[in-house]
Amino acid sequence: MTTIDALAATLRTVLGDERVISDRQELRTYECDGLAHYKVIPALVVFPHTAAECATAVKACVEAGVPFVARGSGTGLSGGALPRADGVLIVTSQMRQIVEIAPQDERAVVQPGVINLHVTRAASPRGYYYAPDPSSQQICSIGGNVAENSGGAHCLKYGFTTNHVTGVEIVTPDGDLVHLGGRAPDAPGYDLLGAFVGSEGTLGIATEVTVRLVRLPESVRTLLAAFPSTDAAGAATSAIIGAGVVPAAIEMMDALAIEAAEAAVHCDYPQGAGAVLIVELDGPAAEVEAQFVHVERFCRDNGAFEIRIAADDAERALFWKGRKSAFAAVGRISPDYIVQDGVIPRTALPEVLHRIGEIAAERGVRVANVFHAGDGNLHPLVLFDDSVDGEAERAEEVSGAILDLCISHGGSITGEHGVGMDKAKYMPRMYSDDDLDTMQLVRCAFDPRGLSNPGKVFPTPRLCGEVPGRHKGAHPLQEAGLAEVF
Amino acid sequence: MTTIDALAATLRTVLGDERVISDRQELRTYECDGLAHYKVIPALVVFPHTAAECATAVKACVEAGVPFVARGSGTGLSGGALPRADGVLIVTSQMRQIVEIAPQDERAVVQPGVINLHVTRAASPRGYYYAPDPSSQQICSIGGNVAENSGGAHCLKYGFTTNHVTGVEIVTPDGDLVHLGGRAPDAPGYDLLGAFVGSEGTLGIATEVTVRLVRLPESVRTLLAAFPSTDAAGAATSAIIGAGVVPAAIEMMDALAIEAAEAAVHCDYPQGAGAVLIVELDGPAAEVEAQFVHVERFCRDNGAFEIRIAADDAERALFWKGRKSAFAAVGRISPDYIVQDGVIPRTALPEVLHRIGEIAAERGVRVANVFHAGDGNLHPLVLFDDSVDGEAERAEEVSGAILDLCISHGGSITGEHGVGMDKAKYMPRMYSDDDLDTMQLVRCAFDPRGLSNPGKVFPTPRLCGEVPGRHKGAHPLQEAGLAEVF
Repeated sequence: MTTIDALAATLRTVLGDERVISDRQELRTYECDGLAHYKVIPALVVFPHTAAECATAVKACVEAGVPFVARGSGTGLSGGALPRADGVLIVTSQMRQIVEIAPQDERAVVQPGVINLHVTRAASPRGYYYAPDPSSQQICSIGGNVAENSGGAHCLKYGFTTNHVTGVEIVTPDGDLVHLGGRAPDAPGYDLLGAFVGSEGTLGIATEVTVRLVRLPESVRTLLAAFPSTDAAGAATSAIIGAGVVPAAIEMMDALAIEAAEAAVHCDYPQGAGAVLIVELDGPAAEVEAQFVHVERFCRDNGAFEIRIAADDAERALFWKGRKSAFAAVGRISPDYIVQDGVIPRTALPEVLHRIGEIAAERGVRVANVFHAGDGNLHPLVLFDDSVDGEAERAEEVSGAILDLCISHGGSITGEHGVGMDKAKYMPRMYSDDDLDTMQLVRCAFDPRGLSNPGKVFPTPRLCGEVPGRHKGAHPLQEAGLAEVF
Repeated sequence: MTTIDALAATLRTVLGDERVISDRQELRTYECDGLAHYKVIPALVVFPHTAAECATAVKACVEAGVPFVARGSGTGLSGGALPRADGVLIVTSQMRQIVEIAPQDERAVVQPGVINLHVTRAASPRGYYYAPDPSSQQICSIGGNVAENSGGAHCLKYGFTTNHVTGVEIVTPDGDLVHLGGRAPDAPGYDLLGAFVGSEGTLGIATEVTVRLVRLPESVRTLLAAFPSTDAAGAATSAIIGAGVVPAAIEMMDALAIEAAEAAVHCDYPQGAGAVLIVELDGPAAEVEAQFVHVERFCRDNGAFEIRIAADDAERALFWKGRKSAFAAVGRISPDYIVQDGVIPRTALPEVLHRIGEIAAERGVRVANVFHAGDGNLHPLVLFDDSVDGEAERAEEVSGAILDLCISHGGSITGEHGVGMDKAKYMPRMYSDDDLDTMQLVRCAFDPRGLSNPGKVFPTPRLCGEVPGRHKGAHPLQEAGLAEVF
């Protein structure tokens, strides 16, 4: 009996036959997440229903020395939930109980498999909602959101997942159940909750999540403004933020992204636009009305040639339909594409967009830009045709060059999609060896055996005994060039 | 030559004679921080001016096997900067350069010794300010704020220090210079920045801090409302927050706290009040005006018998003067007092305040309540006379009972003052052994020798090799009660 067979037998005893998959054909369903160009068929897939079952599954893996990878809905875009061929995929999507909706404390408690939008559905009759809204919010799960620290269009005003999680129960990589944070906004001791959120399954698996609920705004107003160029739309964005207005969202799409959205969902955006902005304000009616006038003026002053104001929820939904379907829509104008995810200071927008255009032109690659303009989180869509020799490689090059551009402008290699499998190789472009070693030391503190989602996030995974940094040599003063003191 | 003498000689070579103190009388200046009932005279005090000097000082301590404690302005209230008799106190108060004010990116970069209020002073001519505002903001330093994750009256709306720091350069407990976070709101990899902020000097020393700047509000309005009781004031608070209004601050003082403030600063609060609320709204003028009407109504509806609205900045300053001087003012009505710092869910305010009153009456101790009502962060001031036998012990008992009360209502043992020396013993009341071990594992990853501010935060410091948890035994399934599976 192989190790995997023995482990499968153990897990069947604990979880029941129907919640352990080992059939090769059935396993294939789980070979990738939303980043479909990496594919690995896992050795086993299991579905815990409770924290105790999840802990038991992890302990069984540890006992067998088998790596494990947690997966929620599998919508991630960085390959964070890519399985291991020699490992177990622990799928939390059946842990979908909403444990508590407590509007009086502005909190909800949910299991990790609960769908993002379902938290809002459960809370909205009480006048509250869950603010972080990835484009995939109809299908992505809270557990996955926690693992990747997911963002969304409205994170400009409301912050990322990490700003909305106040407590988690986790299964550590050793199979212990531990609580980090709680209901209060700021627990004593180390804030390990912050380190856990966004750790992409490398520090353990969330089995229960306490999130903040936000009061539904009294008023929401949305406008769509068409500009001759991304420069003009960028200038309007800077003017709005520079004036101290913080809209719930400022989203930009360039001409190619608009073309794709029109082809897919017929959203009827203004014709001839070099860029559109969707600006949404929410809050108390008095504030929204007053600020809306400013936003409209900033758009006109910066060259908007058409401004539409959503008359009702239906029109508002139509504005958003084009934006939220933009990634998928690109499939209408290109057989293949890479969704990139970089961040730059907002003030660098015009310069970086120009340079992206130049890089794309130099390599003969088309790049559509759809992004959270308000916080400088770019999503360039690099188009290619995998059936044409060399196109995939050129697209990959352009994609990497765009990240370098973000870094050289003081930005970051990922805004909200995570590092996962896809961007581990770029980490040394942002961090020094000492910086990465410091992260690895924490990794090793949680997971000395390296079994919890190995191969993700870090560019050169090492055995934990090999990580230098805090444990290094005996003569620190000599290292500091002060040997002459002795 | 003793170890300390040799270390002093080394440090003098690096820092110069005038920046190394070893004279017993001079050392006495540094024997405590703001929590003056613990006093320890350090073996040495040093004043680095640069990150490199700070790293060198740490490396020298590590080389000598001598513990070290970082200190900013020394205004902390939990004994987090209490020296070690056998250790070096590394004082960062001379690292006070404002490196950069960059309003276009909403960031400032400062050295750790920069005074909190000086960041705002430097940024306000450009239309920005630094939001976290401890009552000690005129003297406390940003480095200390980072260490303790300091709060303040306006953190209700704006969040704590951890919500305003986007990057730090630190000297690790091994003396390496490492960068955590950066300018972007959310860096890839682990969010160790969050773990560092509030780690009270146990994970290293911040040598440069990048903070968010917030736009100065267009409008600020402040009211002072007098209520017959803390119950009534608590109900008004709940009504305001429950309606979705988020004031910049909602502060409450009870009758005894008002008496103390009147005695000290003659703030002329309404006579006969069982409690006063100070409510401040800020933001766009339209929003503030509209919400102010609601706030006033909620106060009246819940029994406010006098409401004053600040006519100008002078009157606004007067409202705040009573509140901000309340801790010190208590010295006018009691020779000694303990400032407690607990958190409860806002909805539990009336019940907890009643119970505090009962506990105080049972033990014959007076307790004045001054607190951030909006976020349920209590600051009970437990009054006693140290010259009367047994009073100090009874005050300490009441103080501990109040913390138990906070915990039993789902709250926390510290809202903003930190754990430090003072509350380490209470940590097991909030956390399981597994939870604390998880924190200690991170501590040991950073500081395997246990030299960086030892004895703080953790109730039972252990040698790092002794910390169980993620490194434990070989049969996790047996531990989980599943031995029969094998």
